[in-house]
Amino acid sequence: MAITLKDVAKKAGVTVTTVSRVLNNRGYISDKTRNKVYQVMEELNYQPNEIARSLSKKKSNIIGIIIPTVSHPFFSELAFYLEAYAYQKGYKIMLCNSQHDPKKEKEYTEMLRGNQVDGIIMASHTMEVSEYENLDLPIVTFDRQIEGIPYISSDNYKGASLATNLLIDKGCKKLAYISGSLSLNLLANKRNEAFINIAQSRNVDYITAQTDMNVFNTQQYEGLIRNLFKDHPDIDGVFASSDLIAANAIKVSEQLNKRIPKDIKIIGYDDIQMSSLLIPELTTIRQPIEEMSSLAIELLNKQINDNDVEIDNILPVALIERQTT
Amino acid sequence: MAITLKDVAKKAGVTVTTVSRVLNNRGYISDKTRNKVYQVMEELNYQPNEIARSLSKKKSNIIGIIIPTVSHPFFSELAFYLEAYAYQKGYKIMLCNSQHDPKKEKEYTEMLRGNQVDGIIMASHTMEVSEYENLDLPIVTFDRQIEGIPYISSDNYKGASLATNLLIDKGCKKLAYISGSLSLNLLANKRNEAFINIAQSRNVDYITAQTDMNVFNTQQYEGLIRNLFKDHPDIDGVFASSDLIAANAIKVSEQLNKRIPKDIKIIGYDDIQMSSLLIPELTTIRQPIEEMSSLAIELLNKQINDNDVEIDNILPVALIERQTT
Repeated sequence: MAITLKDVAKKAGVTVTTVSRVLNNRGYISDKTRNKVYQVMEELNYQPNEIARSLSKKKSNIIGIIIPTVSHPFFSELAFYLEAYAYQKGYKIMLCNSQHDPKKEKEYTEMLRGNQVDGIIMASHTMEVSEYENLDLPIVTFDRQIEGIPYISSDNYKGASLATNLLIDKGCKKLAYISGSLSLNLLANKRNEAFINIAQSRNVDYITAQTDMNVFNTQQYEGLIRNLFKDHPDIDGVFASSDLIAANAIKVSEQLNKRIPKDIKIIGYDDIQMSSLLIPELTTIRQPIEEMSSLAIELLNKQINDNDVEIDNILPVALIERQTT
Repeated sequence: MAITLKDVAKKAGVTVTTVSRVLNNRGYISDKTRNKVYQVMEELNYQPNEIARSLSKKKSNIIGIIIPTVSHPFFSELAFYLEAYAYQKGYKIMLCNSQHDPKKEKEYTEMLRGNQVDGIIMASHTMEVSEYENLDLPIVTFDRQIEGIPYISSDNYKGASLATNLLIDKGCKKLAYISGSLSLNLLANKRNEAFINIAQSRNVDYITAQTDMNVFNTQQYEGLIRNLFKDHPDIDGVFASSDLIAANAIKVSEQLNKRIPKDIKIIGYDDIQMSSLLIPELTTIRQPIEEMSSLAIELLNKQINDNDVEIDNILPVALIERQTT
């Protein structure tokens, strides 16, 4: 029986992706890991399948992008910029919406491989780390850290600190952090961590609330926020993990005759186009969506062309003060 | 020299797509056209290339979708539903953003053919009718009518009539219609037509304004609307061709201290998610985006499976009265 990448990976105690990266000299691999992999290959007398490798190098000039849903304004702006920068570098994109469904996410990764995409940008993260092993393709992730795979995120901890500190500086006594599901292993969860750390260290009362995993649904957001405000009428400062959630918080506040920013202050995250169209205009933490997209394409392109890339890519955020604080 | 589809089409005075449809017995073709095509084939002794035809029937289960840009909320919701219904029928989608650039639109159609998509949904329309001829693929268009190709649109004339009549019924004396570019040959232009017809027939003063072709840009919308309100301070009723434009009209009105709906009434078109998040909530004409998407996939799937389909698919609209009128 022929020795496969999988056998090497198993014996070396690393992922198939890592072995593939060592073979193709792609991405950052520590000397220790590299040496271990070479040692195991020698022990097992592993012969890389050159034909398969060269076939796999035939470029299709297509990049696969997997996002939770394009109907969420953050992801629609992200998809817009990814497509524009991909096009500049001669790539077309296949856009897939996983809807946070692990089955769909897996089917889409398989479909993308079947269509011989040159690489994948993953911004939906229900898959297990082990499932990334078999991809053997250049990958860039958004907001999720997996060993050996370059990722891009905004400085989530810093962003949440800016927001939480501003609410407290402006006099808020009872803070709420409202976010999407924290059950996914996302770097964005650092926003929750920072919020709690700052509130605790500054001795301010706080509460957190999160939606179901599958939901970017305005009606569900609205219900969640209404219940939160009913159960805790003393909330006077809201930090929302997206501008879309913040927009719902503004709406519910208006319905309950809470004056913004007098009775309640609200801060979003993302700075999507819509945030300056809201009335009052939304104070938010700006993620550099365009720069993140441009960098994602650059990192993927470098990997496709067998160049080294940085693994950790954390981009700066900015506090954009408007009328809700 | 071998006789091609093109030669048959030219001599019969029809498009290549029409000849292909006759050969594949796909889509609606009048008896007159069908007979003419058969007659020409006989005259020219045309032999359809069966191998090519059967190869072209190999299914990839991928549908190509070309839209202007996924960053516009109408198109992001459309893309969302198209993807969801495609998935239900076992298709994956390749999503392309043309940005209304004819070069990009053409490159994307070629890329989709190269990737052997089973069909294309076209919601971006800078290409000439003649360029559709060479596609020889099942196609469904949104909002554009091309002979022999099934299209889907909302009832644009009816929608605009509802909006214009409501503004007049509510007492508006000077109406404005603000839209995207009318230079594209879109069925949506019937909104402009209906607006003018109703305003004229009811003897109400009106003005129309339109943006550049390439723009779904909030800042440009805002500038356009500010200038319009400056030049015509007596405008007291606005019908906007999208909720995004209407959101900008609300914002500019607030900035100019025009009270909504007392001083100025505003109606949008689409009923995207955001329209009920605006304050005041936006009165709008609802396009049935989900139904339109589901029908598009159904029509494409039927064509792919060689079933007949309706060419004209005009879906009903509804006036959703909220707080801006």
